Amino acid sequence: MKNNGMLVILSGPAGSGKDTVIAELFKSNFDITKSVSMTTRAPRDGETDGIDYIFVSEEVFLKSVKNEELLEFARYGINYYGTPKAPVDKWLSEGETVILKIDVEGADNIRKMYPDTVSIFIMPPSMQILEKRLRNRGSEDEEDVLRRLKIAVREIERCKDEYDYVVINDDLQDAVDDIKTIINAERHKVSRSSIFLSEVFKNV
Amino acid sequence: MKNNGMLVILSGPAGSGKDTVIAELFKSNFDITKSVSMTTRAPRDGETDGIDYIFVSEEVFLKSVKNEELLEFARYGINYYGTPKAPVDKWLSEGETVILKIDVEGADNIRKMYPDTVSIFIMPPSMQILEKRLRNRGSEDEEDVLRRLKIAVREIERCKDEYDYVVINDDLQDAVDDIKTIINAERHKVSRSSIFLSEVFKNV
Repeated sequence: MKNNGMLVILSGPAGSGKDTVIAELFKSNFDITKSVSMTTRAPRDGETDGIDYIFVSEEVFLKSVKNEELLEFARYGINYYGTPKAPVDKWLSEGETVILKIDVEGADNIRKMYPDTVSIFIMPPSMQILEKRLRNRGSEDEEDVLRRLKIAVREIERCKDEYDYVVINDDLQDAVDDIKTIINAERHKVSRSSIFLSEVFKNV
Repeated sequence: MKNNGMLVILSGPAGSGKDTVIAELFKSNFDITKSVSMTTRAPRDGETDGIDYIFVSEEVFLKSVKNEELLEFARYGINYYGTPKAPVDKWLSEGETVILKIDVEGADNIRKMYPDTVSIFIMPPSMQILEKRLRNRGSEDEEDVLRRLKIAVREIERCKDEYDYVVINDDLQDAVDDIKTIINAERHKVSRSSIFLSEVFKNV
Protein backbone atom coordinates (compact mmCIF):
# COMPACT_ATOMS: atom_id res chain seq x y z
CA MET A 1 0.00 0.00 0.00
CA LYS A 2 1.54 3.28 -1.11
CA ASN A 3 1.52 5.87 1.63
CA ASN A 4 2.56 9.35 2.54
CA GLY A 5 5.90 9.63 4.29
CA MET A 6 6.00 9.15 8.05
CA LEU A 7 8.31 10.64 10.66
CA VAL A 8 8.94 8.40 13.67
CA ILE A 9 10.63 9.63 16.85
CA LEU A 10 12.31 7.14 19.19
CA SER A 11 13.22 8.35 22.68
CA GLY A 12 14.01 6.79 26.00
CA PRO A 13 15.99 7.53 29.15
CA ALA A 14 19.63 6.53 29.56
CA GLY A 15 19.55 2.88 30.65
CA SER A 16 16.38 2.08 28.66
CA GLY A 17 18.60 0.35 26.11
CA LYS A 18 17.26 2.46 23.23
CA ASP A 19 20.58 2.52 21.37
CA THR A 20 20.67 -1.29 21.23
CA VAL A 21 17.00 -1.47 20.21
CA ILE A 22 17.47 1.06 17.42
CA ALA A 23 20.67 -0.61 16.17
CA GLU A 24 18.82 -3.95 16.04
CA LEU A 25 15.86 -2.32 14.24
CA PHE A 26 18.19 -1.05 11.52
CA LYS A 27 19.99 -4.37 11.21
CA SER A 28 16.69 -6.04 10.24
CA ASN A 29 15.41 -5.64 6.71
CA PHE A 30 12.53 -3.42 7.75
CA ASP A 31 11.57 -0.70 5.29
CA ILE A 32 12.70 2.43 7.15
CA THR A 33 15.22 5.23 6.63
CA LYS A 34 17.61 6.32 9.36
CA SER A 35 18.19 10.00 9.78
CA VAL A 36 21.91 10.67 10.29
CA SER A 37 22.78 13.26 12.93
CA MET A 38 25.41 15.94 12.56
CA THR A 39 27.93 16.26 15.42
CA THR A 40 31.05 18.14 16.40
CA ARG A 41 32.46 15.26 18.43
CA ALA A 42 35.36 13.22 17.03
CA PRO A 43 34.58 9.90 15.29
CA ARG A 44 35.08 6.82 17.48
CA ASP A 45 36.78 3.66 16.22
CA GLY A 46 34.62 2.00 13.57
CA GLU A 47 32.37 5.00 12.97
CA THR A 48 31.97 6.17 9.39
CA ASP A 49 31.32 9.76 8.36
CA GLY A 50 27.90 10.09 6.70
CA ILE A 51 26.67 6.77 8.10
CA ASP A 52 27.02 6.88 11.88
CA TYR A 53 27.18 10.67 12.03
CA ILE A 54 28.03 13.59 9.81
CA PHE A 55 31.20 14.77 11.54
CA VAL A 56 31.76 18.52 11.23
CA SER A 57 33.70 21.32 12.90
CA GLU A 58 32.02 23.57 15.44
CA GLU A 59 32.21 26.38 12.91
CA VAL A 60 30.28 24.39 10.28
CA PHE A 61 27.77 23.21 12.91
CA LEU A 62 27.01 26.70 14.19
CA LYS A 63 26.65 27.96 10.62
CA SER A 64 23.99 25.25 10.03
CA VAL A 65 22.19 26.41 13.19
CA LYS A 66 22.29 30.03 12.03
CA ASN A 67 21.00 29.09 8.55
CA GLU A 68 18.14 27.09 10.16
CA GLU A 69 19.28 23.94 8.41
CA LEU A 70 18.74 21.76 11.52
CA LEU A 71 15.41 20.36 12.75
CA GLU A 72 16.73 20.44 16.30
CA PHE A 73 20.07 20.50 18.04
CA ALA A 74 21.45 20.08 21.54
CA ARG A 75 24.77 20.31 23.32
CA TYR A 76 25.91 17.47 25.56
CA GLY A 77 29.09 18.36 27.42
CA ILE A 78 31.34 20.10 24.91
CA ASN A 79 29.77 18.50 21.81
CA TYR A 80 26.92 19.58 19.58
CA TYR A 81 24.43 17.13 18.01
CA GLY A 82 21.73 18.04 15.50
CA THR A 83 19.37 16.70 12.82
CA PRO A 84 19.76 18.13 9.27
CA LYS A 85 16.34 19.11 7.89
CA ALA A 86 16.85 18.83 4.12
CA PRO A 87 17.32 15.02 3.85
CA VAL A 88 14.36 14.37 6.21
CA ASP A 89 12.05 16.51 4.06
CA LYS A 90 13.30 14.82 0.90
CA TRP A 91 12.68 11.29 2.27
CA LEU A 92 9.23 12.23 3.58
CA SER A 93 8.24 13.66 0.19
CA GLU A 94 9.31 10.34 -1.35
CA GLY A 95 6.99 8.40 0.98
CA GLU A 96 9.74 7.01 3.23
CA THR A 97 9.38 6.20 6.92
CA VAL A 98 12.11 8.26 8.58
CA ILE A 99 13.40 7.30 12.04
CA LEU A 100 14.83 9.91 14.41
CA LYS A 101 16.54 9.01 17.66
CA ILE A 102 16.06 12.07 19.78
CA ASP A 103 15.71 13.21 23.40
CA VAL A 104 12.45 14.33 25.01
CA GLU A 105 13.24 18.01 24.51
CA GLY A 106 14.17 17.61 20.83
CA ALA A 107 11.04 15.51 20.26
CA ASP A 108 8.90 18.39 21.44
CA ASN A 109 10.40 20.69 18.80
CA ILE A 110 9.96 18.10 16.03
CA ARG A 111 6.27 17.62 16.88
CA LYS A 112 5.67 21.35 16.53
CA MET A 113 7.14 21.31 13.00
CA TYR A 114 5.66 17.93 11.91
CA PRO A 115 2.35 17.53 13.78
CA ASP A 116 1.66 14.03 12.43
CA THR A 117 4.92 12.63 13.83
CA VAL A 118 4.62 9.21 15.48
CA SER A 119 6.45 9.18 18.82
CA ILE A 120 7.56 6.03 20.61
CA PHE A 121 9.02 6.01 24.12
CA ILE A 122 11.34 3.12 24.99
CA MET A 123 10.93 2.26 28.65
CA PRO A 124 12.94 0.12 31.04
CA PRO A 125 10.89 -2.77 32.54
CA SER A 126 11.21 -1.25 36.04
CA MET A 127 13.04 1.48 37.90
CA GLN A 128 15.13 -1.15 39.69
CA ILE A 129 16.36 -2.54 36.36
CA LEU A 130 17.04 0.97 35.06
CA GLU A 131 19.16 1.66 38.14
CA LYS A 132 21.00 -1.64 37.76
CA ARG A 133 21.73 -0.95 34.07
CA LEU A 134 23.11 2.51 34.90
CA ARG A 135 25.36 1.07 37.62
CA ASN A 136 26.58 -1.75 35.37
CA ARG A 137 27.99 0.74 32.91
CA GLY A 138 30.82 1.03 35.43
CA SER A 139 32.06 4.28 34.00
CA GLU A 140 29.80 6.40 36.17
CA ASP A 141 30.14 7.33 39.84
CA GLU A 142 27.34 7.28 42.41
CA GLU A 143 26.46 10.93 41.94
CA ASP A 144 26.24 10.46 38.19
CA VAL A 145 23.96 7.43 38.57
CA LEU A 146 21.58 9.33 40.84
CA ARG A 147 21.56 12.32 38.47
CA ARG A 148 20.74 10.08 35.51
CA LEU A 149 18.00 8.34 37.49
CA LYS A 150 16.42 11.69 38.31
CA ILE A 151 16.51 12.72 34.64
CA ALA A 152 15.01 9.34 33.67
CA VAL A 153 12.09 9.83 36.08
CA ARG A 154 11.41 13.31 34.67
CA GLU A 155 11.49 11.93 31.11
CA ILE A 156 9.19 9.03 31.97
CA GLU A 157 6.75 11.49 33.49
CA ARG A 158 6.75 13.56 30.31
CA CYS A 159 6.24 10.42 28.22
CA LYS A 160 2.73 10.09 29.64
CA ASP A 161 1.61 13.39 28.17
CA GLU A 162 3.79 13.75 25.11
CA TYR A 163 4.35 10.36 23.48
CA ASP A 164 1.96 8.25 21.40
CA TYR A 165 3.31 4.79 22.20
CA VAL A 166 5.33 3.10 24.90
CA VAL A 167 7.51 0.04 24.28
CA ILE A 168 8.97 -1.85 27.23
CA ASN A 169 12.54 -2.99 26.59
CA ASP A 170 12.51 -6.20 28.61
CA ASP A 171 13.44 -8.55 25.76
CA LEU A 172 15.43 -6.90 22.92
CA GLN A 173 13.74 -8.79 20.06
CA ASP A 174 10.25 -8.18 21.50
CA ALA A 175 10.98 -4.45 21.74
CA VAL A 176 12.17 -4.35 18.11
CA ASP A 177 9.08 -6.28 16.98
CA ASP A 178 6.82 -3.92 18.94
CA ILE A 179 8.29 -0.92 17.13
CA LYS A 180 7.77 -2.63 13.76
CA THR A 181 4.17 -3.44 14.69
CA ILE A 182 3.50 0.19 15.62
CA ILE A 183 4.99 1.49 12.35
CA ASN A 184 3.06 -1.09 10.31
CA ALA A 185 -0.19 -0.13 12.04
CA GLU A 186 0.45 3.58 11.52
CA ARG A 187 0.81 2.87 7.81
CA HIS A 188 -2.89 1.88 7.87
CA LYS A 189 -4.03 5.18 9.41
CA VAL A 190 -6.74 6.69 7.25
CA SER A 191 -5.01 10.05 7.74
CA ARG A 192 -1.84 8.68 6.10
CA SER A 193 -3.53 6.81 3.26
CA SER A 194 -4.53 9.68 1.03
CA ILE A 195 -2.49 8.39 -1.89
CA PHE A 196 -4.08 4.97 -1.69
CA LEU A 197 -7.61 6.25 -1.14
CA SER A 198 -7.34 8.39 -4.25
CA GLU A 199 -6.55 5.15 -6.17
CA VAL A 200 -9.76 3.49 -4.98
CA PHE A 201 -11.75 6.64 -5.63
CA LYS A 202 -10.51 7.49 -9.06
CA ASN A 203 -13.21 5.40 -10.69
CA VAL A 204 -16.10 6.33 -8.43
CA MET B 1 1.75 -5.97 29.20
CA LYS B 2 -1.44 -5.45 31.19
CA ASN B 3 -3.70 -2.86 29.66
CA ASN B 4 -7.00 -1.12 29.95
CA GLY B 5 -9.82 -2.63 27.92
CA MET B 6 -10.14 -1.63 24.29
CA LEU B 7 -13.21 -1.36 22.06
CA VAL B 8 -12.56 -2.06 18.36
CA ILE B 9 -15.11 -1.32 15.65
CA LEU B 10 -14.91 -3.14 12.31
CA SER B 11 -16.95 -1.74 9.43
CA GLY B 12 -16.97 -2.01 5.69
CA PRO B 13 -19.35 -1.80 2.77
CA ALA B 14 -21.25 -4.83 1.46
CA GLY B 15 -18.81 -6.55 -0.91
CA SER B 16 -15.73 -5.56 1.13
CA GLY B 17 -15.64 -9.10 2.47
CA LYS B 18 -15.74 -7.95 6.08
CA ASP B 19 -17.78 -10.94 7.29
CA THR B 20 -15.14 -13.38 5.99
CA VAL B 21 -12.31 -11.29 7.43
CA ILE B 22 -13.95 -11.12 10.86
CA ALA B 23 -14.80 -14.84 10.86
CA GLU B 24 -11.16 -15.63 10.04
CA LEU B 25 -9.95 -13.24 12.75
CA PHE B 26 -12.03 -15.08 15.35
CA LYS B 27 -10.90 -18.50 14.12
CA SER B 28 -7.28 -17.54 14.90
CA ASN B 29 -6.09 -17.73 18.49
CA PHE B 30 -5.82 -13.98 18.81
CA ASP B 31 -6.66 -12.56 22.23
CA ILE B 32 -9.94 -10.75 21.51
CA THR B 33 -13.56 -10.99 22.63
CA LYS B 34 -16.42 -11.01 20.16
CA SER B 35 -19.48 -9.01 21.06
CA VAL B 36 -22.62 -11.03 20.25
CA SER B 37 -25.46 -9.10 18.64
CA MET B 38 -29.11 -9.44 19.55
CA THR B 39 -31.55 -9.99 16.67
CA THR B 40 -35.20 -10.66 15.98
CA ARG B 41 -34.48 -12.66 12.84
CA ALA B 42 -34.84 -16.45 12.90
CA PRO B 43 -31.68 -18.56 13.39
CA ARG B 44 -30.23 -20.01 10.17
CA ASP B 45 -28.97 -23.57 9.89
CA GLY B 46 -25.89 -24.06 12.05
CA GLU B 47 -26.33 -20.86 14.04
CA THR B 48 -26.27 -21.18 17.85
CA ASP B 49 -28.18 -18.91 20.21
CA GLY B 50 -25.75 -16.89 22.37
CA ILE B 51 -22.80 -17.56 20.06
CA ASP B 52 -23.76 -16.36 16.59
CA TYR B 53 -26.54 -14.11 17.83
CA ILE B 54 -28.82 -13.73 20.81
CA PHE B 55 -32.14 -14.61 19.17
CA VAL B 56 -35.11 -12.82 20.74
CA SER B 57 -38.70 -11.88 19.93
CA GLU B 58 -39.51 -8.40 18.69
CA GLU B 59 -41.20 -7.74 22.03
CA VAL B 60 -38.03 -8.56 24.01
CA PHE B 61 -35.89 -6.56 21.56
CA LEU B 62 -38.03 -3.43 21.80
CA LYS B 63 -38.07 -3.71 25.59
CA SER B 64 -34.24 -3.71 25.55
CA VAL B 65 -34.32 -0.59 23.37
CA LYS B 66 -36.73 1.12 25.77
CA ASN B 67 -34.62 0.20 28.80
CA GLU B 68 -31.50 1.56 27.04
CA GLU B 69 -29.78 -1.80 27.29
CA LEU B 70 -28.37 -1.59 23.72
CA LEU B 71 -25.30 0.34 22.60
CA GLU B 72 -26.84 0.77 19.17
CA PHE B 73 -29.49 -0.89 17.08
CA ALA B 74 -30.72 -0.84 13.52
CA ARG B 75 -33.47 -2.38 11.46
CA TYR B 76 -32.64 -4.09 8.15
CA GLY B 77 -35.77 -5.10 6.29
CA ILE B 78 -38.15 -6.56 8.85
CA ASN B 79 -35.45 -7.55 11.36
CA TYR B 80 -33.84 -5.71 14.25
CA TYR B 81 -30.14 -6.03 15.16
CA GLY B 82 -28.51 -4.50 18.22
CA THR B 83 -25.49 -4.64 20.57
CA PRO B 84 -26.20 -5.35 24.28
CA LYS B 85 -24.28 -2.85 26.45
CA ALA B 86 -23.81 -4.78 29.73
CA PRO B 87 -21.43 -7.52 28.48
CA VAL B 88 -19.31 -5.00 26.55
CA ASP B 89 -18.86 -2.85 29.68
CA LYS B 90 -18.02 -5.92 31.75
CA TRP B 91 -15.36 -7.14 29.27
CA LEU B 92 -13.81 -3.67 28.97
CA SER B 93 -13.57 -3.35 32.77
CA GLU B 94 -11.76 -6.70 32.78
CA GLY B 95 -9.16 -5.37 30.30
CA GLU B 96 -10.43 -7.32 27.29
CA THR B 97 -10.22 -6.21 23.67
CA VAL B 98 -13.84 -6.25 22.48
CA ILE B 99 -14.63 -6.45 18.74
CA LEU B 100 -17.83 -4.99 17.31
CA LYS B 101 -18.90 -5.54 13.72
CA ILE B 102 -21.06 -2.56 13.02
CA ASP B 103 -22.20 -0.28 10.18
CA VAL B 104 -21.00 3.28 9.65
CA GLU B 105 -24.07 4.76 11.34
CA GLY B 106 -23.82 2.54 14.41
CA ALA B 107 -20.07 3.25 14.65
CA ASP B 108 -20.81 6.93 14.98
CA ASN B 109 -23.03 6.30 18.02
CA ILE B 110 -20.45 4.00 19.66
CA ARG B 111 -17.69 6.60 19.29
CA LYS B 112 -19.85 9.18 21.09
CA MET B 113 -20.25 6.81 24.07
CA TYR B 114 -16.68 5.40 24.04
CA PRO B 115 -14.42 8.17 22.73
CA ASP B 116 -11.25 6.03 22.77
CA THR B 117 -12.76 3.42 20.45
CA VAL B 118 -10.43 2.15 17.71
CA SER B 119 -12.21 2.06 14.35
CA ILE B 120 -11.07 0.05 11.35
CA PHE B 121 -12.65 0.30 7.93
CA ILE B 122 -12.36 -2.74 5.67
CA MET B 123 -12.06 -1.64 2.07
CA PRO B 124 -12.34 -3.45 -1.25
CA PRO B 125 -9.14 -3.23 -3.35
CA SER B 126 -11.00 -1.23 -6.03
CA MET B 127 -14.49 -0.16 -6.99
CA GLN B 128 -14.37 -2.57 -9.96
CA ILE B 129 -13.72 -5.51 -7.62
CA LEU B 130 -16.45 -4.33 -5.24
CA GLU B 131 -18.90 -4.25 -8.14
CA LYS B 132 -17.80 -7.69 -9.31
CA ARG B 133 -18.20 -9.13 -5.81
CA LEU B 134 -21.70 -7.70 -5.49
CA ARG B 135 -22.70 -9.16 -8.88
CA ASN B 136 -21.20 -12.56 -8.07
CA ARG B 137 -23.51 -12.95 -5.10
CA GLY B 138 -26.09 -13.81 -7.71
CA SER B 139 -28.99 -13.24 -5.39
CA GLU B 140 -29.28 -9.58 -6.24
CA ASP B 141 -30.76 -7.91 -9.32
CA GLU B 142 -29.20 -5.02 -11.23
CA GLU B 143 -31.10 -2.36 -9.32
CA ASP B 144 -29.99 -3.88 -6.01
CA VAL B 145 -26.34 -3.98 -7.14
CA LEU B 146 -26.41 -0.32 -8.15
CA ARG B 147 -28.13 0.64 -4.89
CA ARG B 148 -25.47 -1.20 -2.85
CA LEU B 149 -22.67 0.38 -4.89
CA LYS B 150 -24.07 3.83 -4.14
CA ILE B 151 -24.25 3.03 -0.42
CA ALA B 152 -20.68 1.68 -0.54
CA VAL B 153 -19.39 4.91 -2.10
CA ARG B 154 -21.14 6.96 0.59
CA GLU B 155 -19.63 4.78 3.32
CA ILE B 156 -16.13 4.93 1.84
CA GLU B 157 -16.43 8.72 1.73
CA ARG B 158 -17.36 8.79 5.44
CA CYS B 159 -14.46 6.47 6.25
CA LYS B 160 -12.01 9.25 5.40
CA ASP B 161 -13.33 11.51 8.14
CA GLU B 162 -14.59 9.06 10.72
CA TYR B 163 -12.32 5.99 10.87
CA ASP B 164 -8.86 5.63 12.37
CA TYR B 165 -7.49 2.87 10.13
CA VAL B 166 -8.16 1.41 6.71
CA VAL B 167 -7.43 -2.21 5.79
CA ILE B 168 -7.57 -3.30 2.16
CA ASN B 169 -9.16 -6.72 1.75
CA ASP B 170 -7.22 -7.90 -1.28
CA ASP B 171 -5.77 -11.06 0.29
CA LEU B 172 -7.83 -12.50 3.18
CA GLN B 173 -4.89 -13.52 5.39
CA ASP B 174 -3.13 -10.18 4.84
CA ALA B 175 -6.28 -8.31 5.90
CA VAL B 176 -6.60 -10.43 9.07
CA ASP B 177 -2.90 -9.87 9.88
CA ASP B 178 -3.30 -6.13 9.32
CA ILE B 179 -6.14 -6.00 11.86
CA LYS B 180 -4.04 -7.92 14.40
CA THR B 181 -1.12 -5.54 13.82
CA ILE B 182 -3.35 -2.52 14.42
CA ILE B 183 -4.76 -3.98 17.65
CA ASN B 184 -1.28 -4.96 18.89
CA ALA B 185 0.03 -1.45 18.17
CA GLU B 186 -2.94 0.16 19.92
CA ARG B 187 -2.09 -1.89 23.00
CA HIS B 188 1.15 0.11 23.15
CA LYS B 189 -0.61 3.49 23.16
CA VAL B 190 0.56 5.52 26.15
CA SER B 191 -3.07 6.53 26.68
CA ARG B 192 -4.06 2.88 27.15
CA SER B 193 -1.12 1.86 29.32
CA SER B 194 -2.07 3.47 32.62
CA ILE B 195 -2.09 0.15 34.44
CA PHE B 196 1.38 -0.74 33.27
CA LEU B 197 2.84 2.72 33.80
CA SER B 198 1.66 2.66 37.41
CA GLU B 199 3.71 -0.54 37.83
CA VAL B 200 6.90 1.13 36.63
CA PHE B 201 6.19 4.18 38.75
CA LYS B 202 5.26 2.54 41.99
CA ASN B 203 8.88 2.55 43.19
CA VAL B 204 9.88 5.96 41.92
